[in-house]
Amino acid sequence: MSSAGPDFSALLARRTQRMQRSAIREILKVTEDPQIISFAGGLPNPSTFPVADVAESAAKVLREAGPTALQYSTTEGYRPLREFIARRYWEKRQLRVDPDEILITNGSQQGLDLLGKVLLDAGDQVLLERPAYLGAIQAFSAYEPQFTSVTLQDDGPDLAELEAALDQRKPKIFYAVPNFQNPSGLSYSAAKREAVGRLCAARSVVLVEDDPYAELRFRGEHLPTLKHHCPQGVLLGSFSKIVAPGLRMGWICAPRQLMDLMVTAKQGVDLHSNYFSQRVVHQHLVDHDLDAHIAMVRGLYGRQRDAMVAAIKRHFPASVKSSEPDGGMFLWVQLPEGVSVAALFKAAIARKVAFVPGAAFYVDVADDRHLRLNFSNSDEARIDEGMRRLGEAIRELQAG
Amino acid sequence: MSSAGPDFSALLARRTQRMQRSAIREILKVTEDPQIISFAGGLPNPSTFPVADVAESAAKVLREAGPTALQYSTTEGYRPLREFIARRYWEKRQLRVDPDEILITNGSQQGLDLLGKVLLDAGDQVLLERPAYLGAIQAFSAYEPQFTSVTLQDDGPDLAELEAALDQRKPKIFYAVPNFQNPSGLSYSAAKREAVGRLCAARSVVLVEDDPYAELRFRGEHLPTLKHHCPQGVLLGSFSKIVAPGLRMGWICAPRQLMDLMVTAKQGVDLHSNYFSQRVVHQHLVDHDLDAHIAMVRGLYGRQRDAMVAAIKRHFPASVKSSEPDGGMFLWVQLPEGVSVAALFKAAIARKVAFVPGAAFYVDVADDRHLRLNFSNSDEARIDEGMRRLGEAIRELQAG
Repeated sequence: MSSAGPDFSALLARRTQRMQRSAIREILKVTEDPQIISFAGGLPNPSTFPVADVAESAAKVLREAGPTALQYSTTEGYRPLREFIARRYWEKRQLRVDPDEILITNGSQQGLDLLGKVLLDAGDQVLLERPAYLGAIQAFSAYEPQFTSVTLQDDGPDLAELEAALDQRKPKIFYAVPNFQNPSGLSYSAAKREAVGRLCAARSVVLVEDDPYAELRFRGEHLPTLKHHCPQGVLLGSFSKIVAPGLRMGWICAPRQLMDLMVTAKQGVDLHSNYFSQRVVHQHLVDHDLDAHIAMVRGLYGRQRDAMVAAIKRHFPASVKSSEPDGGMFLWVQLPEGVSVAALFKAAIARKVAFVPGAAFYVDVADDRHLRLNFSNSDEARIDEGMRRLGEAIRELQAG
Repeated sequence: MSSAGPDFSALLARRTQRMQRSAIREILKVTEDPQIISFAGGLPNPSTFPVADVAESAAKVLREAGPTALQYSTTEGYRPLREFIARRYWEKRQLRVDPDEILITNGSQQGLDLLGKVLLDAGDQVLLERPAYLGAIQAFSAYEPQFTSVTLQDDGPDLAELEAALDQRKPKIFYAVPNFQNPSGLSYSAAKREAVGRLCAARSVVLVEDDPYAELRFRGEHLPTLKHHCPQGVLLGSFSKIVAPGLRMGWICAPRQLMDLMVTAKQGVDLHSNYFSQRVVHQHLVDHDLDAHIAMVRGLYGRQRDAMVAAIKRHFPASVKSSEPDGGMFLWVQLPEGVSVAALFKAAIARKVAFVPGAAFYVDVADDRHLRLNFSNSDEARIDEGMRRLGEAIRELQAG
């Protein structure tokens, strides 16, 4: 605790000991210096935001729906928006989802909090990927679970580890990000999707599939969701990466019993999501070509990803390994033995370059070999210059 | 649980046993029949929503701030909006609040959830007014506390009861709605504000002052907040009643230590509140005359309140007691001994009139004598006709 003022320490809930500020948000403060080339954030590129289209949709909603668009509304969310989401799952992914099993949330982050709220008692087991998405670690931590992680290989989780963990730990949740995972950029192969889905479907566990990046695929075709193979699974989605994140508009698809409980939980949490924004997002989706918009975003991110992969090859020692993601916003780097990420972070900041040390994404082991690089929010010139400086710093550290 | 589909009962958190759908939301479903004259909801009157002004502000924000208004943002909230709120507390209420101690939330309901999250372990004591705001009961219930309530008299809580409960129960929270309380419409006198503030200031308890209705005062002058008398108290506010609720825009003022923890909690819950709406609300407040707008709302609600008080005098038996609120949106009715609210509810629905039975607002005693009537969302003619039918139903029940 920083600060002056009254001391409430004796009144705090035990869970506050588990709640931590995001390491990333703390790093982002360092990078507010505009001279710093930052690959630390996880921001979509604002040049892709459909500003004029959203303005048009906002005006139309208020003109046509009038005060209704500003009134209290249902906890479940705006029905036509839920129908749009269900229809799109069918058209793009051949996945059948009932609109009644979709809850509109304040970004998909809120879906994770609601899941924790309805599923987790203190001490319950939660299974994560290793490395794991930091936002999920934060959301679940407030419910005081025990975390275990399974190794994420290039094509998905280590299946033997996963099966053993499911059987021995008996987790309530297995949390998976099968497409272009944050932080690693890795994706599950078709075979591993099927295997993971089946392992979970045969057990008493909630398979939580977080899928905010699926539509940001630069190469290859959509692969089935885990929910295809595990119909009782939960699937989270978001408009943050395909429309804009400031609208905080996500959703969670869950079987009826969990849906009912999450709706009840959300009533107590915030009554319902911003109704005006639900209407605006829906109007935007109806009136504009989402596929064309996503194609533009994919084109841009794909070029930036290519630039980063090429710059890494150009500037980094060959002993540095790096993921080469087929989509998403992140690339995952493994330093050679003996080079410390913590040391590199300091050296990089001295050279006005920032990234996120991998340690933040581990719950049950220490890590000082990995780092996350974001490519969605830097242009190709900055990417090249940033990789050049990072490569220099790595060589210097290697030289001792 | 309603429904088909997989059974997750073995995986649910214990707290789900405490989570209940709002009785009001269930009643509202009954009242979807447009023929029903409903005093059950707690909705602001949509005729007061500044639709054109919000449209203008939305267009301006997107024109001037561009993609920035749609990007991820800070958890604390849009700084100029927090400064506006702090300034207004000073100008209207002579209360000094530091903008750094204001967190923007998804309606003030989210502030209650965050407070529960940082303060309450299972079994902790929470002190409420009797009757108490249902949304607070719901928000806190998810953290499995023990509730106790203190009698709300016409001028505020029974002070002897309050002091005894504070000393014997040692609650972590005393939750108070000092202005035009929901459901009762009652307000604390100046003397009781001072006494309640002092009792709490002298003890290890978080005084939570929920104040969404303060600006909807039809008669008399603003009285001091409880926070004037208990500076370490927490104060919740909302734009739902003075701009529009669909924007889900509220705030919580809390001393630094609690503020820091709630910010950390909110990171895990939803990262931050809808940033576009924060910008729109701020632009709206800067460009339009909020005081004139509130004067219009107050005028309308005041006339509707007068109409309801008069219609009750005209149509109800003299043995029925009713609060005569100086502001807000609700009026609280006590039936004479021997007349059951549950029976009246049935008789009223048969006559196509709805209200909320008081039982929903009690945590530690049963109630079958009170009902809540909303006057903000019905015009004077419907109010008179509704009270006429209700009066008829009461007389019929009295007659046996």
